[in-house]
Amino acid sequence: MATLHLAHWAVNLQHSTLPQSVLLAARRSLYNYIGCTIGGSNHPTVQKAQTALSPFFGPATSTLLGRHSKIDAQHAALLNGIASHVHDYDDTHLATIIHPTGPVASALLAYVEFQKEAVSGGELLTALTAGIETSCKLGLALWPSHYDVGWHITSTTGSIGAAVAVGKVMGLDAERMAHAIGIAATQATGLREMFGSDTKSFHPGRAAQNGLVAALLAREGFTSSSAALEAKRGWGNVLVSGGEPQLERFLGELGSVWEVERNAFKPFPCGIVCHPAMDGGIQLHGEVKGEVEGVEVRVHPLVLELTGKKTPRDGLEGKFSVFHGVAVALLFGKAGPAEYADGVVRDSKVVALRDKISATADEGLRADEAFVTVVLKDGTRLEKHVVHAIGSLEIPMTDEQLTEKFVDQCELVLGKEGARKASEGAWAIGDVGDVASAVKGL
Amino acid sequence: MATLHLAHWAVNLQHSTLPQSVLLAARRSLYNYIGCTIGGSNHPTVQKAQTALSPFFGPATSTLLGRHSKIDAQHAALLNGIASHVHDYDDTHLATIIHPTGPVASALLAYVEFQKEAVSGGELLTALTAGIETSCKLGLALWPSHYDVGWHITSTTGSIGAAVAVGKVMGLDAERMAHAIGIAATQATGLREMFGSDTKSFHPGRAAQNGLVAALLAREGFTSSSAALEAKRGWGNVLVSGGEPQLERFLGELGSVWEVERNAFKPFPCGIVCHPAMDGGIQLHGEVKGEVEGVEVRVHPLVLELTGKKTPRDGLEGKFSVFHGVAVALLFGKAGPAEYADGVVRDSKVVALRDKISATADEGLRADEAFVTVVLKDGTRLEKHVVHAIGSLEIPMTDEQLTEKFVDQCELVLGKEGARKASEGAWAIGDVGDVASAVKGL
Repeated sequence: MATLHLAHWAVNLQHSTLPQSVLLAARRSLYNYIGCTIGGSNHPTVQKAQTALSPFFGPATSTLLGRHSKIDAQHAALLNGIASHVHDYDDTHLATIIHPTGPVASALLAYVEFQKEAVSGGELLTALTAGIETSCKLGLALWPSHYDVGWHITSTTGSIGAAVAVGKVMGLDAERMAHAIGIAATQATGLREMFGSDTKSFHPGRAAQNGLVAALLAREGFTSSSAALEAKRGWGNVLVSGGEPQLERFLGELGSVWEVERNAFKPFPCGIVCHPAMDGGIQLHGEVKGEVEGVEVRVHPLVLELTGKKTPRDGLEGKFSVFHGVAVALLFGKAGPAEYADGVVRDSKVVALRDKISATADEGLRADEAFVTVVLKDGTRLEKHVVHAIGSLEIPMTDEQLTEKFVDQCELVLGKEGARKASEGAWAIGDVGDVASAVKGL
Repeated sequence: MATLHLAHWAVNLQHSTLPQSVLLAARRSLYNYIGCTIGGSNHPTVQKAQTALSPFFGPATSTLLGRHSKIDAQHAALLNGIASHVHDYDDTHLATIIHPTGPVASALLAYVEFQKEAVSGGELLTALTAGIETSCKLGLALWPSHYDVGWHITSTTGSIGAAVAVGKVMGLDAERMAHAIGIAATQATGLREMFGSDTKSFHPGRAAQNGLVAALLAREGFTSSSAALEAKRGWGNVLVSGGEPQLERFLGELGSVWEVERNAFKPFPCGIVCHPAMDGGIQLHGEVKGEVEGVEVRVHPLVLELTGKKTPRDGLEGKFSVFHGVAVALLFGKAGPAEYADGVVRDSKVVALRDKISATADEGLRADEAFVTVVLKDGTRLEKHVVHAIGSLEIPMTDEQLTEKFVDQCELVLGKEGARKASEGAWAIGDVGDVASAVKGL
């Protein structure tokens, strides 16, 4: 009954009964998504995909965020989805490391602009919430074996979240919603082997497009299975890959435990595991007066496993280097997309400081904890213990910090004034009467 | 090295060195594909998908087979792929039960018409062979655990075969071919839970589109992984689902054992397991003179497991009923798409005979073997032992039988004269200088 339960829950979800804290969390997720997508919109990965696929573009209805241009809704979902993830700067549902908003919002915004009837900000946030809850609950149900074996959980769950969100805005009945879920479920995009290549961010883009297509087909009466998630050879059992899917348990909590409230936002555009050490570096930035002899970093073992690259050669590799992250944090007191430009990763001052950093794995630390110690030539030791990193659930980014992150990354694409205007528009979108006309300005 | 090995093999494959028997098998596979795709082109499943997605169609370059109209290449690959499979009448690589030509040829033909340079029939058959070998070798490498756990092996392997075929016609170098393989591999469409719904035939269609998109992206320099198939968290290990992938072994046989030669063609548009019994029914058709008291069918146990529906209610259910299959075989001496129309499944004469059929599972029989006994009211017993069913590798369909199958199903779409002309065009396509101009007539 998991599929039908999810379908009924989504169909019956109402804006008027959503807790304020849920709506606020959805609004922050959407805002952060728009900033990341604009920030990623001129990335070479997006450009290559656009060049390859533009000969197939259909009627231009839907905005490419940050580009002030429209393309067809399917390709807009795909390209915006790629852009949302390409800087590894998007949101993280910490319990599953799903980046939930990218696939869901990319499909949703593309569809809202495509269709004729006006959709209000409230309807948008409701549909977005339905999609995010779907992706995260499904992720929890298959966690951790699904991710461990090698699936990119953001996209394997994201296509279903996207289908539910678009289906919600379409007003599908529960039967068609279940078919939409099934059509999305049967398109399991995303292998972790692709991490480090253009295809990593293709995954959430394709998930958005797959979910959109699923809802469109289901609306037309295209059938799949009303037991798509829970059947013996359905999504859960096939994709759990050796584990035991817990669909009943987690889908049973829909509407009582809200996953969107457990969605966190990255302060830095790189692997989340190195954020605590970088937070320590930023906190020490103002205190370092004098020449640095060495830097000692003590972190959770996963940090070195995932981001242990000693000598990154470009911006992409820099994202997998806690050494680069701490170096720019100490040097510049910030670590936005600009600090991950190829030129910065190769800058002699950055490289010199990076080479002075040593890191130790400590099993006794939590994943969001770190010690950073700067030793100056004169023997002074400056130490910082980060108990919880900025961006964790304990120390969430404030709205002001989210705004700073938004403007900081959008400036590189839209300029200062454009970024400020986009930020205002993105914060307001939950209140507008017609989302489509608000989106086209972004 | 599996990914790079496959990429190099495909890039280096040459028409001039392909054995004649391989080219002949490829030509028969293509011919059968075209017939099935035209035959399926007006099916409601295809129509629903077309209606749902037509608002997104881009420039019309590529033929919808059987419709005398063009749409953009991506959607042509999708819709032709759906049509190729929708009657369950397509080819079968018996060792893996992959239907290999649908995804590969749908992508290939759509791309050939899209691009500017003329592609010859020989080049087409070479690329088709590259794609079919790819799909089938990959299927063998993951067989049987991949299928057993619930993957629709036709589409999970088909996207990669399609990418290789399109990449071959594009002239990708080995590096980009490897990336195309990876982009296709990361899109694992097809859960068996969808069998019996519209989404089953969506699978090969989407595989065709995914493979086409993979090749287009790779040509533009979009990267994936050059170890996409064999890496720890790559396609083979993730999708084998508990088994042990045998990539080295089977990809090592590329070019020495040709899978396209082991591709069989269905004489009847239904599950292949009930073909032996239906073959027996057809052989007895002329002999039954007098009223039938009962029919006894003895078959391999899988027949009743997969096609044991006693009282099918429509054409789709009829495909999963050995009882319906044997009834029409005995009554009409044939079993084409016309015999699976809803009206025939509900016809009182068919139902009356069907109800007289009893079936027994016999573990001692091979899957392509059956005994059919008709008992007449006067006590006469007519018995037929089918040692190998028509359409098996031992008793392959002749070119004449393939032509009859083609014309029989295309007649329902194109009329008698149109079907005959299409058949001539489809047989000739391997010899033409410009495939695109030949395809647009189909």
